[in-house]
Parts: sequence; C-alpha cells; structure tokens
Amino acid sequence: MEQRISLITLAVEELPRAVQFYQNMGWQAVQTGPGVAAFNMNGTVFGLYPWDSMAQEMGLDPELEMRPRTTLGYNVREKAEVAQILEAAETHGGAILKPAHDIFWGGHSGFFADPDGHMWEVAFNPFSPVAADGKFHWSTDQDTTQA
Amino acid sequence: MEQRISLITLAVEELPRAVQFYQNMGWQAVQTGPGVAAFNMNGTVFGLYPWDSMAQEMGLDPELEMRPRTTLGYNVREKAEVAQILEAAETHGGAILKPAHDIFWGGHSGFFADPDGHMWEVAFNPFSPVAADGKFHWSTDQDTTQA
Repeated sequence: MEQRISLITLAVEELPRAVQFYQNMGWQAVQTGPGVAAFNMNGTVFGLYPWDSMAQEMGLDPELEMRPRTTLGYNVREKAEVAQILEAAETHGGAILKPAHDIFWGGHSGFFADPDGHMWEVAFNPFSPVAADGKFHWSTDQDTTQA
Repeated sequence: MEQRISLITLAVEELPRAVQFYQNMGWQAVQTGPGVAAFNMNGTVFGLYPWDSMAQEMGLDPELEMRPRTTLGYNVREKAEVAQILEAAETHGGAILKPAHDIFWGGHSGFFADPDGHMWEVAFNPFSPVAADGKFHWSTDQDTTQA
C-alpha cells in the first residue's frame, strides 16, 4: 500500500442531520445525497454513510450492538491490486471481511480488518482514478454509491 | 472549521502489533513509540494509540463495552479556536466531551462528539503549527503525546 488514505467514512443514523452538522461547522459538501454525502479535502474524501447501508454492504447484522462506526478507504490504481492488498492484509495478521468483487456500477472492491478490527475498504474506481500523486477526489459525474 | 482533518487515530490493543501490521503493509512510521505511533501522509497524520491511553485521556471507563475506536483530529492555528470550535459543535447539535484545557507538554485541546457520537479532538500544538495550506505533519522534535 502507498502511504495514503482515500476516504474516511463515518457511519451515521440520519444522513441529513449529519450533513447539516458538518455544513454548520463550515464545510462544503460535493454531494449531500441521496444515500451518501461526500466532502473533498485536498486528496482525501470525508464521507457520511447511513449505518444500515454500511451494514448491508458489508453483510453485517443491522442490529449489531458493536457497530463498526468508521471505515477507511484505500483506492488503488489497478483492479488487480484489490485482491493483492486483501491477501497481504491476511498474511500480516488482518482478516478479509469481504473478498474482492465487482460492484454493479463498475467498480471493484473488498474489505479487510486490521488486527484490531479496524475496517478498510480497498477499491478500484474506474470513473474516479487515483491521481499520480495519490490524491483522490470524489466525483459526482457518475452515479456510484461507493463510500 | 476549515475543511481538513489533521489526524486519524485508531485505538489499538497492542501498539507494537498494530505498528508492525502497517509497516508490513508498506507504510513508514515517523514514530513507532513509546506510547503512540504516527505515520505522515501528505498533510494528514495517521496515528495508532492504545485504547487504555485514549480512554484515560478522555476520562472514559477502560472497561467500556462500546469503545470509541477512532478519533479524528482537527488542529487549529490559534489557541482560542479550540474553545470556539467546541462551542460551535455544541450549538449545532454535537456535545462537548472534554472542554478546552492546557496539556502538560504545552498544548491545548478539547474533545467533542458529532450528533452520531463520532469523536473529534480539537488541538492547538505550538510545536507543530498547521501549515498555511492546512497541512499537518507529525514532528518528533518535541516529546508530546498528542494523538
């Protein structure tokens, strides 16, 4: 992995409430809905995503008491890197939560947990490629639900 | 608040194990201990911090079942901004978890939770000022334990 984080996504109960809070704090969203909100921060995206959507995407029980509340995202340059990074994480003491798979909108992603259970999504997004310098910016040109 | 995040800190059970994992994944730490690990990522710092330390710093019960596992950090340019941002967060539906206070090493910080309980530390660090462009880099020149 290159030393960078593409997305920091917070699970929220009510998306409009969460968006309003960060807007009130002075931030400007590039997308406020539906389904996901995103704020571009100079190469890292700050995302807000309903807990239920996050749980569904990861195959988790929505009634879980110990809810994962934050996901870090690492976007890759080549599709094959997704599986490679998941395997590396498993080799080094992490766990693959969801293997690399194609997503309906044309992306490709998978999830791993680090040794403390912190969740990472590794994703290939052909519509919003990672810049040469590693920066990732949310684009609303395509209708994706990646978060 | 300016639209940026200074630190992303993950709570971990065993610092050396967590450091080793991210090093194995290809990252280089600017600090691996004692007490805290930090990786510089082009203006945002990725930190690893023992859960017990995080709980102590925030006045939480270390036996809590619902452990906050991630803290976002926002470093300010002027000391007075810490209290101002905490007050703004409270005004807009967040909660002040720990009011602005001086820290023994010369910093000044406080914690708030957003409406979903996600925790933010707002900090003034006179030894590692925020750059004009908003970037924050971890420095080991001073012995601080901010994370």
